[in-house]
Amino acid sequence: MADLLVVGSVALDSVETPFGKVREVLGGSATYFSYSASFFTQVRLVATVGEDFPDAHLRLLEDRGVDTGGLQTSAGRTFRWTGEYGYDLNEATTLETQLNVFAEFRPVLTDGLDPELQLDVLRQMQERPRLVALDTMNFWIQRKREALRRVLSEVDVITINDGEARQLASEPNLIRAARAISAMGPRTVVVKRGEYGALLMTGGTLFFVPAYPLESVYDPTGAGDTFAGGFMGYLAAQDRVDAAAMRRAIVYGTVMASFTVEDFSLKRLTLLKPSDIAERYAALHELIRVEP
Amino acid sequence: MADLLVVGSVALDSVETPFGKVREVLGGSATYFSYSASFFTQVRLVATVGEDFPDAHLRLLEDRGVDTGGLQTSAGRTFRWTGEYGYDLNEATTLETQLNVFAEFRPVLTDGLDPELQLDVLRQMQERPRLVALDTMNFWIQRKREALRRVLSEVDVITINDGEARQLASEPNLIRAARAISAMGPRTVVVKRGEYGALLMTGGTLFFVPAYPLESVYDPTGAGDTFAGGFMGYLAAQDRVDAAAMRRAIVYGTVMASFTVEDFSLKRLTLLKPSDIAERYAALHELIRVEP
Repeated sequence: MADLLVVGSVALDSVETPFGKVREVLGGSATYFSYSASFFTQVRLVATVGEDFPDAHLRLLEDRGVDTGGLQTSAGRTFRWTGEYGYDLNEATTLETQLNVFAEFRPVLTDGLDPELQLDVLRQMQERPRLVALDTMNFWIQRKREALRRVLSEVDVITINDGEARQLASEPNLIRAARAISAMGPRTVVVKRGEYGALLMTGGTLFFVPAYPLESVYDPTGAGDTFAGGFMGYLAAQDRVDAAAMRRAIVYGTVMASFTVEDFSLKRLTLLKPSDIAERYAALHELIRVEP
Repeated sequence: MADLLVVGSVALDSVETPFGKVREVLGGSATYFSYSASFFTQVRLVATVGEDFPDAHLRLLEDRGVDTGGLQTSAGRTFRWTGEYGYDLNEATTLETQLNVFAEFRPVLTDGLDPELQLDVLRQMQERPRLVALDTMNFWIQRKREALRRVLSEVDVITINDGEARQLASEPNLIRAARAISAMGPRTVVVKRGEYGALLMTGGTLFFVPAYPLESVYDPTGAGDTFAGGFMGYLAAQDRVDAAAMRRAIVYGTVMASFTVEDFSLKRLTLLKPSDIAERYAALHELIRVEP
């Protein structure tokens, strides 16, 4: 049995940024998440793709040791997302979303995307997992707020964008928003702030980490999912998940995301060596260190 | 002789934010800077005000031990600034600027605002100061770029907003912009990023600190100047200005700015006790600490 079970989307993305464009490259939240987490722990991916999904993409994940036994191939086309970014790389504009086979995705033993599925699946688990994390987005906050509130009451960790945190809590101040979300259930709230880093609220205490400073950012697609994968992957590999481990996990998530944004799709991640991760971890640690 | 000489504006500000409004309250870059620095070192303020400048404001500075011998009262009205902020408190809209007596300000032995004056004044100093810092703004970057480049080649530290850093370096990436500005002269570049914290580049190494997390921000006016005052005030009080001291100074600057934004004008600063500063310093240090 894998140490980390991830359920989400595997997609073909078409992306344009001021620095270039790509068509139908490997993407999807669960793809970035599991590839990133695979550097830390054994990952099992549950998702669905269409018959047009290239074998090469599947092999990429398997080469990282990701267990793809839960990746169903369904009749139809793979989920496609088309988006673009201006010079403010913090803000994606979605040009087209084709759910395709993803629309009919009914994962068994998963935490899905729709909060009703997420809750249903948590109830299916034979044994309560050590740590249950959920990522949500504006779509579900708007349309399934009540179901989301119910599933939130049963998870340990939520990872969420800053704008979505404000939206979910109906509160413009980020600290108050994080506190309000924690009061909905998750003991740990991780707010992803893109180029401005990440905020961890766990057990009422706060931790901030800036984004890793890069001289070139090409494409932020998948950065948040890569972050979450590094965060959860690191935690899954620890014997003890305490506040200190959570902080290190946030730093690892930040490091992993910094590689994703350096090229399109998972290109930079596929070139990654464990020593690259260790180097950036040390550099980021040095970047925020203050001697008393 | 004071340990820290500051030259800049003393103003009467009218400010409206979503949380309230004030008319003709004490403001100005040199005011915030010197009040903030006074918690760390002996400050001498060089500035000009009009005959309408309230005595109470002067006493406020003197009560903090600020040497106001260099504050000239000129015939005419005090510099006035009127501005407003929307819910995005990072962005001020200037509604009116009345330079008044400030237009005729010709400080002797100062580093002024106009880069030509700044350079002239540096040359007037009998003895080279241990550390010369300069803050500039978009106005001078646009209109006196060449003079600014000349004075930059002679200063040790520049403090600058992120947008202005990009503008001065003609470079959208902040890290590259900071590096380019450092190549213009200042060994130390401090980029102020408002609610996103501050970046220090000194001798080629980087340090990031987030803004102090606040649940209520009322008015960001003067935050950058308060930050710079805390930063320079702390450094002026140190025997040794090395990279570690610079990092601590950035944290102190951040702490001081966090008080300014909690109320209009210098209201929160006037209630400040040294123990409040020490408490937030410890809290901010805890907020960014990662055990290896």
